[in-house]
Amino acid sequence: MTPETLPSWPDAAATLIAVAAGRAPAQTVVRGGKVVNVHTREVLTWEVAIAEGRFAYVGPDASHCIGPETEVIYAAGRYVIPGLCDAHMHVESGMLTPAEFCAAVIPHGTTAMFTDPHEIANVLGLPGVRLMHDEARMQPCSMFVQMPSCAPSAPGLETTGSEITPDDVAEAMSWPGIVGLGEMMNFPGVVNGDAKMLAEMAATARAGKTIGGHYASPDLGPAFHAYAAGGPADDHEGTCEDDAVARMRQGMASMMRLGSAWYDVESQITAITERGLDSRRAILCTDDCMAGTLVNDGHMNRVLRHAIACGCDPLVALQMCTINTATHFGLERELGSIAPGRRADLILTSDLTELPIERVIALGRTVAIGGKMTVPCPHLDWPNSARDTVNMARDLTAGDFDIAGPDGANEVTARVIGVVENQAPTRALTRTLPVRDGRVEATGDTCQIALVERHRATGGVTNALVSGFGYTGRMAMASTVAHDSHHMIVVGTCRENMALAANRLRAVGGGVTLFSDDTERAMVELPIAGLMSDSPAVDVAARADALMQAMRDAGCTLNNAYMQHSLLALVVIPDLRISDLGLVDVTKFELTDLIET
Amino acid sequence: MTPETLPSWPDAAATLIAVAAGRAPAQTVVRGGKVVNVHTREVLTWEVAIAEGRFAYVGPDASHCIGPETEVIYAAGRYVIPGLCDAHMHVESGMLTPAEFCAAVIPHGTTAMFTDPHEIANVLGLPGVRLMHDEARMQPCSMFVQMPSCAPSAPGLETTGSEITPDDVAEAMSWPGIVGLGEMMNFPGVVNGDAKMLAEMAATARAGKTIGGHYASPDLGPAFHAYAAGGPADDHEGTCEDDAVARMRQGMASMMRLGSAWYDVESQITAITERGLDSRRAILCTDDCMAGTLVNDGHMNRVLRHAIACGCDPLVALQMCTINTATHFGLERELGSIAPGRRADLILTSDLTELPIERVIALGRTVAIGGKMTVPCPHLDWPNSARDTVNMARDLTAGDFDIAGPDGANEVTARVIGVVENQAPTRALTRTLPVRDGRVEATGDTCQIALVERHRATGGVTNALVSGFGYTGRMAMASTVAHDSHHMIVVGTCRENMALAANRLRAVGGGVTLFSDDTERAMVELPIAGLMSDSPAVDVAARADALMQAMRDAGCTLNNAYMQHSLLALVVIPDLRISDLGLVDVTKFELTDLIET
Repeated sequence: MTPETLPSWPDAAATLIAVAAGRAPAQTVVRGGKVVNVHTREVLTWEVAIAEGRFAYVGPDASHCIGPETEVIYAAGRYVIPGLCDAHMHVESGMLTPAEFCAAVIPHGTTAMFTDPHEIANVLGLPGVRLMHDEARMQPCSMFVQMPSCAPSAPGLETTGSEITPDDVAEAMSWPGIVGLGEMMNFPGVVNGDAKMLAEMAATARAGKTIGGHYASPDLGPAFHAYAAGGPADDHEGTCEDDAVARMRQGMASMMRLGSAWYDVESQITAITERGLDSRRAILCTDDCMAGTLVNDGHMNRVLRHAIACGCDPLVALQMCTINTATHFGLERELGSIAPGRRADLILTSDLTELPIERVIALGRTVAIGGKMTVPCPHLDWPNSARDTVNMARDLTAGDFDIAGPDGANEVTARVIGVVENQAPTRALTRTLPVRDGRVEATGDTCQIALVERHRATGGVTNALVSGFGYTGRMAMASTVAHDSHHMIVVGTCRENMALAANRLRAVGGGVTLFSDDTERAMVELPIAGLMSDSPAVDVAARADALMQAMRDAGCTLNNAYMQHSLLALVVIPDLRISDLGLVDVTKFELTDLIET
Repeated sequence: MTPETLPSWPDAAATLIAVAAGRAPAQTVVRGGKVVNVHTREVLTWEVAIAEGRFAYVGPDASHCIGPETEVIYAAGRYVIPGLCDAHMHVESGMLTPAEFCAAVIPHGTTAMFTDPHEIANVLGLPGVRLMHDEARMQPCSMFVQMPSCAPSAPGLETTGSEITPDDVAEAMSWPGIVGLGEMMNFPGVVNGDAKMLAEMAATARAGKTIGGHYASPDLGPAFHAYAAGGPADDHEGTCEDDAVARMRQGMASMMRLGSAWYDVESQITAITERGLDSRRAILCTDDCMAGTLVNDGHMNRVLRHAIACGCDPLVALQMCTINTATHFGLERELGSIAPGRRADLILTSDLTELPIERVIALGRTVAIGGKMTVPCPHLDWPNSARDTVNMARDLTAGDFDIAGPDGANEVTARVIGVVENQAPTRALTRTLPVRDGRVEATGDTCQIALVERHRATGGVTNALVSGFGYTGRMAMASTVAHDSHHMIVVGTCRENMALAANRLRAVGGGVTLFSDDTERAMVELPIAGLMSDSPAVDVAARADALMQAMRDAGCTLNNAYMQHSLLALVVIPDLRISDLGLVDVTKFELTDLIET
């Protein structure tokens, strides 16, 4: 059963009634378990009967639902908990397709995901979103899609591969798998009443769907209140208890995230565990998980386990990634609990704190046992338009990465993007650098960075300077994952290797590569939109590991260096970034010069 | 502002943002109060700014929202609580129009109602529902309409004035004020997979609206589970703690009611107060309130006060008639809390337990102060089709009420409807009665009851016998409120007075009247559908009081005697009832004979 083939509750109702009444046999019955009821917050010695991919009977004794063909699963005293929901996430962050993302997380007990394909929207626009949507609908679990709201994220400061318009949003709202609008990142736009942002939110609200929020500012004054008045229904950008409290008080869901690099649960969940607020608006999510996290640490089970470890009552924490999430998206009658009519998504686990995921049933079918998928996650036949997206005019040469110095100068004072370990914001540094043969040379802690245009074959290369990676020797690293417009970011100490790396990605259609001494040391091919592999997570994780080792071998000492690399063009986060249009001073939302004097 | 004229949140968003940001003045600001936040379950020293009928800013300081034209209301330390919601009710029970019902309950703090015009649907069908809907949309508060599901309630056992079909339901779902399907009373039909009932629920679910439930049985076994599997999302028929628990565990809302004659809160709220279940699925409602209750005791403020008196935490109880209700109907973003974007419905009260309703704001306007309406509740221009519904072929005579005895018999053993004080079910009694001049005579504790057909002028009169009212002397009482098909029920000791009473109702177009010794002693005219007055509640209550006094004067000692009278044709509640088709044995759902031998 998939979202595409699952009968609606009304379509299934006659069968569900007959099974519950004992007139027809269930497809599957789970006996001998302790069912966690997230409506009442209880553990009950109950049984569960399933038909048509939905729960038909949930009560003390399902023996009347068992026929000769019924599959009977003995829970043997295990807890039967609802499948876990990830309330906000980006599939692309795993560098995986929707199918391979599902294959990676279903064994961890995730049966419902609310995914915002913001990255592919920047590359391919609405058709790219549709492809993600269509592959999501083929999966053996509930993967919903939030229509991306902000492509480009920073109009006027970057050129995306495609743009999203209010008409696109209105169209997408009619697709069956669209659950709402993806995070409204343009919070200054909302606060200032930007007509386009308001039109996107209006199209979503008029369709009766949920407007995702993203308010990445510590300012909880009138600007925050104005944002809330604009319509976003949730926010996952809070980082401290006051942030969580403020959002819930405005009637927004406080989505607390634990991603590969986000640690915002422990600092916010005290709103529930210590301040004792009503927990109904507290929700757990991941936002961004790299493949390695999924392979090694888990997914929503990791988040739930962490929330419990932070002192949250296990049943309250479980509500935060089941019924609270479903209710938030207007899907409480559809999933998020073990109750009649809902999608039959459940987990068998022998411990409510450690959460071993022993069996997973999704849409009525056993989809994973003991950490292994038992059904396939089908792949879409991705068209060439999605596989051939590195659209450069020509191969580059070392000369394309020349930074011209002022005529006759021996040195310059240049603006340098300063990477800060474990933080998303950069610092705007200045460095005095030598000029040789008319070219500015990156020396000391500084190396070169280039934004290579790859959507419209303009031949554009923006050259600039970056500090903080610690690279040594002759090397370069290039990536077509380059938030949010996803051109190509090349960082290197050597212009020849920068050209080699860029041309290699052009040849393979996107990915991440590292060259040193003119030789490729590691590569993650990302043929789909230059963002996603269609290999399994375990393979992508291994290649990503090899790449990170290659970065360390090249002298990089930075934590999460790959993520830092891929965020250097994210022109909505201060202070200094690069885009296809030039160097961007994000504190002023304007372009600035590389050379100060 | 009315539901008809209120801008949607998306339409109001630009203004709401501007007010919250301080760029535009609010229409109204409430300062100096303690705002109850039902999202977090907190009391906050906060301020509230209102524009476009909605909350624009809710936070610690609204001074930036105040302009020269802004109305500033000083709460002077009072609590600012959300307007109260009645989750399930029938306007017709008050014998009032929607307008006069609103005028009666708004001063008590009710700002949102979920009303099921089931009674008018039985008389006038879909056009009658539309009239109720249209008057509701004209009111200065949020009166939503649930599309009645079961007219007739008992197909084959009665003939209603009109019937509701699945196509009617599908059509009504497109009306702006329809919030879902009214109580699915035909629970045996649902449990047995009745195609018509399933089609009505499917039409509702496909429209994304809420299916109201009504499971009036103590059986919590497979039949109950089958009903839940069919789709009803709530139930207000529970009467004990186990009922409430069972419903919430199935993911249904447990609607606990305190009506004029329903006392189901105290016996169920222990599921929250003692068993400690999550309260999110506990909801308060009234179901049926007579005008006198509204005038003398209140409405949802009475229910809320009662829930608190039963030991419920005041903030939890408040959630049960605000945010829980709104969330249940998918309207959490629209009302039920004091939060940005929601309809600006609030109450000022100086005590959270006693709940004096000192000022009421609905849809952004002050609508009541100190128990008095400050704005009108406009009346629809009810058409003649709704005012001229007592459609009898001719005036009746005493002879129409003759009960023929068997040829030559001196006495008979007859089936008698036994009214039981304070209970809805009747008992099937037998009495030996004399036959004089070929007519059965009601003697002793027995008097006559007649069901006079009044929808299609068939001339039909069903005669039967009833016991328990205690009437003495020559009297008769007649009512066109005669659940659920609302023909006319006449109860009397004297056939001449029965004819007088029936003919009087024919003349005035419906109501309730009592004659004794050939003289009318009291009358409540109900010209609209024979169910509703268009007079204010205080007048209707006074007339109803006079009627009940007249019943007592005629010897009636029964508590709630008028309600008992009006329920004697309710052929879905055991044991013995009357309908236009004959005497009905509701234990077997079949017609039965009046004379046993």
